[in-house]
Amino acid sequence: MSSDPRPAPGHPAAVLPLPPMKWDAWGDPALAKPLSEEIRTLLAQVFGISGQDAEAPTADQVVLRPSALSAEDLAALAEIVGASYVSAADADRLPRAGGKSTLDLLRRRDREAQDAPDAVVLPGSEDEIAAVLALCARRRIAVVPFGGGTSVVGGVDPVRADFPAVISLDLRRFDALHSLDETSGEAVLGAGLTGPRAEELLAERGYELGHYPQSFRYATIGGFAATRSSGQDSAGYGRFDEMVRGLRVVTPAGVLDLGRAPASAAGPDLRELFLGSEGVLGVITAVRLRVHPAPAVRVHEAWSFPDFATGAAALRAVEQRGTGPTVIRLSDEAETAVNLAMTEQIGGTQVTGGCLAVTVFEGTEEQVTARHRLTREVLLAAGGDSLGAGPAEAWEHGRFNAPYLRDSLLSAGALCETLETATDWARLPELKTAVTAALQQALEKSGSTSLVLCHLSHVYPTGASLYFTVVAAQQGDPIAQWSAVKAAASDAIMAGGGTITHHHAVGTDHRPWMNQEVGDLGVAILRAVKSTVDPAGILNPGKLIP
Amino acid sequence: MSSDPRPAPGHPAAVLPLPPMKWDAWGDPALAKPLSEEIRTLLAQVFGISGQDAEAPTADQVVLRPSALSAEDLAALAEIVGASYVSAADADRLPRAGGKSTLDLLRRRDREAQDAPDAVVLPGSEDEIAAVLALCARRRIAVVPFGGGTSVVGGVDPVRADFPAVISLDLRRFDALHSLDETSGEAVLGAGLTGPRAEELLAERGYELGHYPQSFRYATIGGFAATRSSGQDSAGYGRFDEMVRGLRVVTPAGVLDLGRAPASAAGPDLRELFLGSEGVLGVITAVRLRVHPAPAVRVHEAWSFPDFATGAAALRAVEQRGTGPTVIRLSDEAETAVNLAMTEQIGGTQVTGGCLAVTVFEGTEEQVTARHRLTREVLLAAGGDSLGAGPAEAWEHGRFNAPYLRDSLLSAGALCETLETATDWARLPELKTAVTAALQQALEKSGSTSLVLCHLSHVYPTGASLYFTVVAAQQGDPIAQWSAVKAAASDAIMAGGGTITHHHAVGTDHRPWMNQEVGDLGVAILRAVKSTVDPAGILNPGKLIP
Repeated sequence: MSSDPRPAPGHPAAVLPLPPMKWDAWGDPALAKPLSEEIRTLLAQVFGISGQDAEAPTADQVVLRPSALSAEDLAALAEIVGASYVSAADADRLPRAGGKSTLDLLRRRDREAQDAPDAVVLPGSEDEIAAVLALCARRRIAVVPFGGGTSVVGGVDPVRADFPAVISLDLRRFDALHSLDETSGEAVLGAGLTGPRAEELLAERGYELGHYPQSFRYATIGGFAATRSSGQDSAGYGRFDEMVRGLRVVTPAGVLDLGRAPASAAGPDLRELFLGSEGVLGVITAVRLRVHPAPAVRVHEAWSFPDFATGAAALRAVEQRGTGPTVIRLSDEAETAVNLAMTEQIGGTQVTGGCLAVTVFEGTEEQVTARHRLTREVLLAAGGDSLGAGPAEAWEHGRFNAPYLRDSLLSAGALCETLETATDWARLPELKTAVTAALQQALEKSGSTSLVLCHLSHVYPTGASLYFTVVAAQQGDPIAQWSAVKAAASDAIMAGGGTITHHHAVGTDHRPWMNQEVGDLGVAILRAVKSTVDPAGILNPGKLIP
Repeated sequence: MSSDPRPAPGHPAAVLPLPPMKWDAWGDPALAKPLSEEIRTLLAQVFGISGQDAEAPTADQVVLRPSALSAEDLAALAEIVGASYVSAADADRLPRAGGKSTLDLLRRRDREAQDAPDAVVLPGSEDEIAAVLALCARRRIAVVPFGGGTSVVGGVDPVRADFPAVISLDLRRFDALHSLDETSGEAVLGAGLTGPRAEELLAERGYELGHYPQSFRYATIGGFAATRSSGQDSAGYGRFDEMVRGLRVVTPAGVLDLGRAPASAAGPDLRELFLGSEGVLGVITAVRLRVHPAPAVRVHEAWSFPDFATGAAALRAVEQRGTGPTVIRLSDEAETAVNLAMTEQIGGTQVTGGCLAVTVFEGTEEQVTARHRLTREVLLAAGGDSLGAGPAEAWEHGRFNAPYLRDSLLSAGALCETLETATDWARLPELKTAVTAALQQALEKSGSTSLVLCHLSHVYPTGASLYFTVVAAQQGDPIAQWSAVKAAASDAIMAGGGTITHHHAVGTDHRPWMNQEVGDLGVAILRAVKSTVDPAGILNPGKLIP
């Protein structure tokens, strides 16, 4: 590595393997979803949005804030990980400049100087991570652990806080299936493995993890653990944190190897401190996970309910009875209607208003038959009408693609974002109403009509999640506009007894609500843990802990 | 309250309501289990134990270390909780002098001065607890939170550490069912409710918690949470920690109200710091718990397997297939044989050697039928022979009574204790062998033959618990004898990859192994949390955290 590896601005040259996602949009450019004429008409009629798409800067045109690291800093990093795994090139820094929230994507459209990490480092071992952390503590460089870069809460934004510089610590080289214990149904997976790669490695041995969040194609095992991700199959296989048997974490104060047994009464469960720690308490390098034999049979069935309350009661009955669907979700009236209008999402004409619910069953032939039969009985008794397999298969086919639509909507001048919470079944209806009203009022105040869609996609015996999708017209500065709307929704969530996030994590965006979430004393506890494992405070400053 | 409420030694007079258990033995004196002639013969033949039972001191004869609290201290405590809820009377102190481990019970037989808390305090509100904690921090008085007093790991022993005095903070007045949300299936229960009282209050509304550890009749909701208890129905209803939706904890630094939602991605799960916190981090006052409608139908079936390995593989198949038994457990060859010899425990003559397994199914008629049928299929395919309902019903009938037998064995000069661990399915056979060998060798070294029985009574998809019962002859100082044996077994557990405790908690007895369990950095994290919530270190010193 030369003494100054920084290329001149305007001459990007990626030195390192790139993150799995496009720098300024969700995912894979080949899957981009241009707006249909129907949607353009809808945007014009409902939101008054028409005309040309806004022109966004290309990567070449983006001006990045110059790297604040000295040649000496970079040489010291290179000495640890090797020269070919450190870069301060703009083309390496730009794709790690943030996650994929609407705010992030709007920031990527800025023609003024954009912020980015001052260098990207790809360590290849736990020892290298430990050495990088020690170096950064000495030189006062903040460290942002980076997996797939799919955060939608500012979790990988290059926040410097009190530090003069920040690096992105990309975990992609932690990409091994370390072991598979078929007897115990456990696999140890490297933190940098993406969802598809992890499943591919397991599938070669006939096993499956079964974690399919919308970020599945790009996000990583370490990221799932660090953010308490929850996948669309959570009814069957659990949230990601429920799959975790153990994890290894490198902190500036040493390495933790947590989870000696499937269950223990040996005091507090410290795994639960590092699950959801968002890179603030350490760098997760490997996760021991519960896996299961790849299912032999999969059965789909979609349902229609007259209204959301009836549908929610039906899903509650299924979960409380424990009839065992792998996927169960319910769209509200608005989301069902919009899906109807965008027929490629549901792939059929059978849906006739009301609320669409989707069920999927996986397992052995016998398991699927039993689970399907029992679930059907409960849903029928609760007022559901079967729509057959079609709409459920169509949902599954498109299930990772919604974010692509957001990219196109943002370009067209619409505001589009999602947010989520969870609460007890008893509070669910009121919370849904309150958050919807908060969103609509705040958007109206910003000068836009709004479309607020909601679904319920993660169920528990005592409650469920609520996932809102919001579409409006950009007004004024869309970053300021959405920030105000999001704050109003977050306040409504807290007032209604919900959690500030069910599966998106905290990052920068939810951090102002953490005192309400866990109390001032809860925050003090998190700070004490942070001081113990990261005395210099270099790990992902400005995230999670207020 | 008079200025010096201490009664003269030898004149015990209980001022306060007594704990649910007898001071020097397990449980209820009415349920005492004298040794049968068969067992006495066995003791003589196998262990060379014969002759009269050792005479133990009566409560009147016990000499308690005098209370170290001044009249002023007691008056200050009385000012907070009221004079009728503070006592330094021997008759109140003695029943809170320890838990119910074999070491505790042997200590209760001591005719020298015995240790006990210097006073017993029964707060009636969270404010009173907070005030007591503040007073104790100022006056340097240690505080041992006390529920049912059933700890078998020294968890409620009156350890003073660096403090001149220690009080027992008895939570029995926190005995309300605060709320029952039938929609969400959640109940908020006071920490001082015993198992039976909690179930009674829920049963009045048609609900059940379903937590039945061996300590069920005496232990409390707060104790279950503080020790990560696991009940015999854990296959169906989960461990206690899995039932917890939220909890309130009073700490010297303030009150925590944790658990806003059924699931959350808002950072680390702080509930998991206070579950298993054993009174070291705070005083749990109320627990929000998942409850379920009382089951309509219960079905029992016992099974015989040719050997433990075959039986364990069968239980693993049931759990990994998820066929849904409420109870599933397997005795090894030795435990099965001993049960055979003590026929009132199994109530039948159908068991013919091998390994006895017990299954119980609960739920609606339909659920029970389906779960029973699927489980039978798996067990039959795995080499099990059905023994019908009899032995399973007999197990259930006597399931809370084993500790009574220990009392009688101790009096007769036998040593009798249990210990437990958990590990992955793959490691289970080796760990069982290693722990058994360590127990046998250490007892042989102490000069006694031994009988080591084992069962597997808590199953998880990735592993299971192992529960050992040890019988031997007391040799020399039985406290020193058992301490050495227990240390050997604990070392074997750690070397074999098990957890130092699956459901008995840490207390004083497992504390030396905590560094191995969670690592030095894990211990440092626990200490940092402790310093934050309990800066004076008054809460249950000498327990859990090394």
